[in-house]
Amino acid sequence: MNGWVVIAGLGPGNEAMVTPEVRDALDAATDVVGYIPYVARVAPREGLVLHASDNRVELDRSRHALEMAAAGKRVVVVSSGDPGVFAMASAVFEALEAGPADWRALEIRVLPGITAMLAAAAAAGAPLGHDFCTINLSDNLKPWALIEKRLRLAAQADFAMAFYNPRSKSRPEGFARTLDILRDACRDARPILFARAVSTPEQSLRIVPLTEATPEMADMRTMVIVGSSTTRIIDTPRGPILYTPRSV
Amino acid sequence: MNGWVVIAGLGPGNEAMVTPEVRDALDAATDVVGYIPYVARVAPREGLVLHASDNRVELDRSRHALEMAAAGKRVVVVSSGDPGVFAMASAVFEALEAGPADWRALEIRVLPGITAMLAAAAAAGAPLGHDFCTINLSDNLKPWALIEKRLRLAAQADFAMAFYNPRSKSRPEGFARTLDILRDACRDARPILFARAVSTPEQSLRIVPLTEATPEMADMRTMVIVGSSTTRIIDTPRGPILYTPRSV
Repeated sequence: MNGWVVIAGLGPGNEAMVTPEVRDALDAATDVVGYIPYVARVAPREGLVLHASDNRVELDRSRHALEMAAAGKRVVVVSSGDPGVFAMASAVFEALEAGPADWRALEIRVLPGITAMLAAAAAAGAPLGHDFCTINLSDNLKPWALIEKRLRLAAQADFAMAFYNPRSKSRPEGFARTLDILRDACRDARPILFARAVSTPEQSLRIVPLTEATPEMADMRTMVIVGSSTTRIIDTPRGPILYTPRSV
Repeated sequence: MNGWVVIAGLGPGNEAMVTPEVRDALDAATDVVGYIPYVARVAPREGLVLHASDNRVELDRSRHALEMAAAGKRVVVVSSGDPGVFAMASAVFEALEAGPADWRALEIRVLPGITAMLAAAAAAGAPLGHDFCTINLSDNLKPWALIEKRLRLAAQADFAMAFYNPRSKSRPEGFARTLDILRDACRDARPILFARAVSTPEQSLRIVPLTEATPEMADMRTMVIVGSSTTRIIDTPRGPILYTPRSV
């Protein structure tokens, strides 16, 4: 078998944040597989087949990629951000583990990308400059009780927190509950960052005290970062800079 | 003032992981400031002054960068990995906040990079594919009691954990204590990854059960990732793949 699978991160949207090794993998591919808006970021060319699929079919897409590689194709599975952070890498390995034994002989590589929380943090300053945690607020794949437990323990640990998938149309109440839990657990007005469409021309950043945050401030294109108790704002003529000092 | 400061991430070591926007900033710079081994990664050229300094002088280096920018220079402060994760961005903002008011009018941008934990995770599979936390194990800038508290709460939250600066010659006992705390808090044989010199020609990966991990498995070039209770290994002819499934 000369086929392979590369699971590659395209970064948060700005093409200048795509690493050269990811570009090289795309240049060498025969097939690209992924969610529609991410595949749309790959330039079509002679000899490259683009397979765009809808959201929530991650396992089907993964099996398709592995099948094509087993048939000799050079397949890139694209994710936005980093493929290892709430993206396609775990889905491909779930499919690999459950699939035919001969798939395990395939060459499979993961190429990291700039994940949304790091692009959002950079755009606002350095809110993740001290210890932090990263939580997917979607309860599609885990019970809400576990999310609540993690939020409360993270507040107790005084981690800054980065939230992926804060809010969707199908679960509008989850993020409202998240804010209530955080206000109850933190009991202060620490800053919270809403970073929408980070690194794209539509980027917008908003920093408010936790006490004034409302669910409508986030949608599915928003990365949310909650400060720790030490996270601070520097006021400048160019706007606020949000950062967490290195020491406590 | 036409000077600026860009705080840029060079990624974990592989030049093919440096983003084009970071390359562009280096091409436009008059001065590059940073820790000796990171500045050594920047190619010398006519019109570019390289200012390499030793470890543990982050605030001096930050003030120097801001002073040069205030004098009209175009300064890139280089970090390895991502500048916002236990690197130079927070140090520059600490210096900015404590410095002369006119520094606040400067253009200061943070350009993200591939941080070590994401490169290590990608090299091993996808151990950070579910909720996780990121802890700097150095007690230079925070008390050991806080590190211990965070480790215990992170285990209770069942986060995967990524550790920066696990072990240094000056604090050899800290990582031994970390392993003892984790064994006490986790009470299982979950996998732990020791990823040394990730993405460089000297890269080495080692996965052992938490019960068999020893302090000597880490040094200051090692990124350590401890699985959550659901993190698994897939055995393949090409070696083990470490990953955390998306669901619990």
